Amino acid sequence: MINALVKSIKKKDAPIVVGLDPMLSYVPDHILEAAFKYYGETLDGAAEAIWQYNKGIIDAVYDLIPAVKPQIAMYEQFGIPGLEAFKKTCDYAKEKGLVIIGDIKRGDIGSTSEAYAVGHLGKVQVGSQTLQPFTEDFVTVNPYLGSDGVKPFMKICKEEKKGIFVLVKTSNPSSGEFQDQLVWQTPLYEIVARKVAEWGESLMGESYSFVGAVVGATYPEMGAALRKIMPRNYILVPGYGAQGGQGKDLKAFFNEDGLGAIVNSSRGIICAYQKAPYKDKFAPENYADASRQAVLDMKEDLKEAYVR
Amino acid sequence: MINALVKSIKKKDAPIVVGLDPMLSYVPDHILEAAFKYYGETLDGAAEAIWQYNKGIIDAVYDLIPAVKPQIAMYEQFGIPGLEAFKKTCDYAKEKGLVIIGDIKRGDIGSTSEAYAVGHLGKVQVGSQTLQPFTEDFVTVNPYLGSDGVKPFMKICKEEKKGIFVLVKTSNPSSGEFQDQLVWQTPLYEIVARKVAEWGESLMGESYSFVGAVVGATYPEMGAALRKIMPRNYILVPGYGAQGGQGKDLKAFFNEDGLGAIVNSSRGIICAYQKAPYKDKFAPENYADASRQAVLDMKEDLKEAYVR
Repeated sequence: MINALVKSIKKKDAPIVVGLDPMLSYVPDHILEAAFKYYGETLDGAAEAIWQYNKGIIDAVYDLIPAVKPQIAMYEQFGIPGLEAFKKTCDYAKEKGLVIIGDIKRGDIGSTSEAYAVGHLGKVQVGSQTLQPFTEDFVTVNPYLGSDGVKPFMKICKEEKKGIFVLVKTSNPSSGEFQDQLVWQTPLYEIVARKVAEWGESLMGESYSFVGAVVGATYPEMGAALRKIMPRNYILVPGYGAQGGQGKDLKAFFNEDGLGAIVNSSRGIICAYQKAPYKDKFAPENYADASRQAVLDMKEDLKEAYVR
Repeated sequence: MINALVKSIKKKDAPIVVGLDPMLSYVPDHILEAAFKYYGETLDGAAEAIWQYNKGIIDAVYDLIPAVKPQIAMYEQFGIPGLEAFKKTCDYAKEKGLVIIGDIKRGDIGSTSEAYAVGHLGKVQVGSQTLQPFTEDFVTVNPYLGSDGVKPFMKICKEEKKGIFVLVKTSNPSSGEFQDQLVWQTPLYEIVARKVAEWGESLMGESYSFVGAVVGATYPEMGAALRKIMPRNYILVPGYGAQGGQGKDLKAFFNEDGLGAIVNSSRGIICAYQKAPYKDKFAPENYADASRQAVLDMKEDLKEAYVR
């Protein structure tokens, strides 16, 4: 799947992933009203609203981008109906030819991590049947439990030709609290990065590994160091736009081949219509057109990062 | 909720939580067959089987124990129907007067962590309605993202009088890979523990904090050090039984008041009927009686740890 992702990034000339992280406050009134009219102000109503909202965005941008990254927390907050909307979103985006990165940040030990991997990337055995519970192509994984927590995901990735992005250095202000702690002069995130490089070597695609890393756009100087430690691991870069990063700051995340990183934008794209400079040009009914324009603008901005 | 948990531990004289981590291979044939007969070999069939299996165990042990800890991965592996079985299990155990510890190991940044917290511990706003997506009393939280990832859970805990257990030192063999790294002579897990103590101070119940910690039974010497760093934080102790720990090794996890820790057993209880010494005495049809006997035995064994 990393080969397919790289191919699609090249073809669409866009190292971009759109984060489908819907909040009800992002959903335009006409969609909310239609959903509540049918389902009431219920979890089902909320789930229908975010699904319709996502569908509009996917329809408007799928030809421009290689991948989407639904953040499962935003669906889980609406319980079972929300998780159904998550699955529907993944399935629909896949139909549209997009690579699905499930931002699930799971991680546990042994058979428990394997259960997550099976559920999201693999197939589960039920009697004589082999069934697919969720349909992501990649998921994000939390490394705090060490190799025991990551290797079961790698086992399923190998079987299914899928991939993971391991949290190395996250984009949030307090990420340094534990991740930056110095272990004999080396920050912990670098120790995690070395493990990611090691794990990745055993699961190589054509030019990049099935095992990637998450490194926040908000820490470009660390991006440079981490790029060197993990030359063949794709870097998923959150924190662009709303969290502060800009194209010109992201050069260090890319390799000389113009590849090696995929930059996520969530709020900056999906609720572009609520913010400058799109707010004045796009009515809420045209929210998806605003998202399309925001993707086009992001595409231009990112060229400063990867075109050599 | 920490007050209710402590009260129930005292009343039942059992610092025990039963981990409801069902695998299909644990479920006796008569339950599997009934579920598949009705639903087929489908995700719904698997979900029905694990739900019926859990119900049997809850019915057999609820009067002996204060809490259950369903591991969500084991449900998530069966997709949406599996997550419905998770919710059903939580709701049913709650009806039986049990405290529910959702072993979800979530953790993300800001609004994303808040979405998890709202979904599992709180209530979500949908239009004019306030709805409860899942019904746990406590959840486990992964600290790798720092305070940004934990504080949104604390906010919801404060509002809802619920609690969290933050992963400090996990029970698995490779937990040391990152958690034991020395930061100026101090292992990372101790640095996390200090944060847990600090976070906990701002959310105190009667004698213990709403913020607890996870420390594996497999590392009793670390348990002693961590007990001192976090005197008022309840410690959730996984790794008893199947993963190797025994009652007499767990003294260090308890305070002088005989409280301060709750020990989890999953496989050791829920599939006791498959293993010595219960296998010869209990047929698969009586699996729940075997689980009851295993709880009674665990209760006796644990007295070596907490009775002063």
